[in-house]
Amino acid sequence: MKILITGAGGFVGQLLAEHLLNDGHTLILADIFEPPTPQAASNKSNVTALKADISADASQVLSKDLDAIYIFHGIMSAGSEADFDLGYRVNLHSTLNLLEAIRKTCPGVRVIYASSTATFGQPLPALPSEATVPTPQGSYGTQKAMIEMVLNDYHRREYINAFTLRFPTISVRPGKPTQAASSWMSGIIREPLQGQESILPCPDDFEAWLCSPKTLVRNLLHALTLERDCMPPHIRQVLLPGITANVGQMLQALKEVGGEDAVKLVKREKPSPEIKAMLDSWPIRFDVSKALGLGFVADSSFKDAVQDFADSLKK
Amino acid sequence: MKILITGAGGFVGQLLAEHLLNDGHTLILADIFEPPTPQAASNKSNVTALKADISADASQVLSKDLDAIYIFHGIMSAGSEADFDLGYRVNLHSTLNLLEAIRKTCPGVRVIYASSTATFGQPLPALPSEATVPTPQGSYGTQKAMIEMVLNDYHRREYINAFTLRFPTISVRPGKPTQAASSWMSGIIREPLQGQESILPCPDDFEAWLCSPKTLVRNLLHALTLERDCMPPHIRQVLLPGITANVGQMLQALKEVGGEDAVKLVKREKPSPEIKAMLDSWPIRFDVSKALGLGFVADSSFKDAVQDFADSLKK
Repeated sequence: MKILITGAGGFVGQLLAEHLLNDGHTLILADIFEPPTPQAASNKSNVTALKADISADASQVLSKDLDAIYIFHGIMSAGSEADFDLGYRVNLHSTLNLLEAIRKTCPGVRVIYASSTATFGQPLPALPSEATVPTPQGSYGTQKAMIEMVLNDYHRREYINAFTLRFPTISVRPGKPTQAASSWMSGIIREPLQGQESILPCPDDFEAWLCSPKTLVRNLLHALTLERDCMPPHIRQVLLPGITANVGQMLQALKEVGGEDAVKLVKREKPSPEIKAMLDSWPIRFDVSKALGLGFVADSSFKDAVQDFADSLKK
Repeated sequence: MKILITGAGGFVGQLLAEHLLNDGHTLILADIFEPPTPQAASNKSNVTALKADISADASQVLSKDLDAIYIFHGIMSAGSEADFDLGYRVNLHSTLNLLEAIRKTCPGVRVIYASSTATFGQPLPALPSEATVPTPQGSYGTQKAMIEMVLNDYHRREYINAFTLRFPTISVRPGKPTQAASSWMSGIIREPLQGQESILPCPDDFEAWLCSPKTLVRNLLHALTLERDCMPPHIRQVLLPGITANVGQMLQALKEVGGEDAVKLVKREKPSPEIKAMLDSWPIRFDVSKALGLGFVADSSFKDAVQDFADSLKK
């Protein structure tokens, strides 16, 4: 298949690209900077890397013969809250612009959109699902929920073949801290396992809804295989499975994999009121029966995710 | 108060403007054409009428000293389904443009937005409420739901003081048929009471969720008096109260007010599959406890609405 990834320079885009290349697909990787070709890919010849501002011109990253598009570009949650204009420009307007160009250039193409549980907010039922009303408490979740709506409309009108995946928080995420309000969840594992200090802004009983990079990629590849009619034409959202872990359990997993010295590198600090409000508004348990019914999978334990990351450091 | 109405040339805008002028307010009436000053207003001096395309430049209709803005402009449901580009340009992009200009010109202003029960779609609970997930089955409902989301975000960020009112179908609506898929609901009363034939595309047991113009205006004026903190800062939607009537009951009210001859002018015809799907997807009963708690009111009977309209013809 010929596949476009937007925001391909980011961590998820790079990891997915590696797997898609290993599976023999042809890729177009687009980002606001020229995205690299994943180092670990066994086959690096079928890649075109594009530096492109899709909020100015989206057609430049498209071609008629595309089979699928992963929409990953975006400003993350804390970033969108801090810079209102930037968040709306990138998360809303550039994506609207891209969808309009898709409709004209490659109608009917499969579109896999990275949404988020930040589309939810208070008040919440005990087990939110795709049937729960979105009441986001941040601009990021608002922008994601708006694009979800327009994807449903484009699919219903048969302009695209849409699959909207609401990601859990991805942990352990490699690389540097991000502008996500949840960035510290990876940080408190990633930095200590590399001998560096890390800030923890939440107490031990703070819970999160997590998914490892390995399982995320497995689910992203699975979305390439789903039939068009596996969901109603006007409701294309799927909550990806996650696991719930609290900070105490995260630190326990860190201790088991990295030892007591690693845990000592975690320093506690209070978050800003804005970030705390956003973190507290995100639900941490979901009814994911829709996703499981469609063949998406969950991690077995958070410790496995920590061990995966520790193993990756040895490569 | 100094109040702007967009789409002020339309029926609801004109009717509201009449009442606001009679109450002594100063009005700016804006529309894509120069909107008239309501004939029936007792005080016509405090009006500025503006011909303005707010999708090109929204700041021209705004001023720093505005106390409230009613956002009424838009392409109606069947029109938005028939012309994808026009619906998105007017219902989504021009309103986003307007909100951005409001944030810069008159931050904190009260914004009263005309939304719709078309934000709902199948599947639905027995009594949908503001807590029901929006699953619109038309582009119109999609665009309304998207603006609802951004209004919540603007309010939460304290850029505006937002009140989103989901209108029932307004009947009996005077004037000419509109591009609403529900236009016939007024037509089957309005045209026969004036000796003209009217098309009825639905069977006697087809039910609708209705509100008379008189009650709608009462509720629109009430929205000017609500306190900012009467709703959570990130959830500003209110389902306006309506009454449920089926086609048989509508025709019975027509008979009681206009006689058997009026009923004979109603001609049955099948709707297009697209319009039928849209009509069938709209719920016809709601839990309006939130609205009632906030002081909004419902009609007492559909017959009263028919009588009101018949009386207006005699003026």
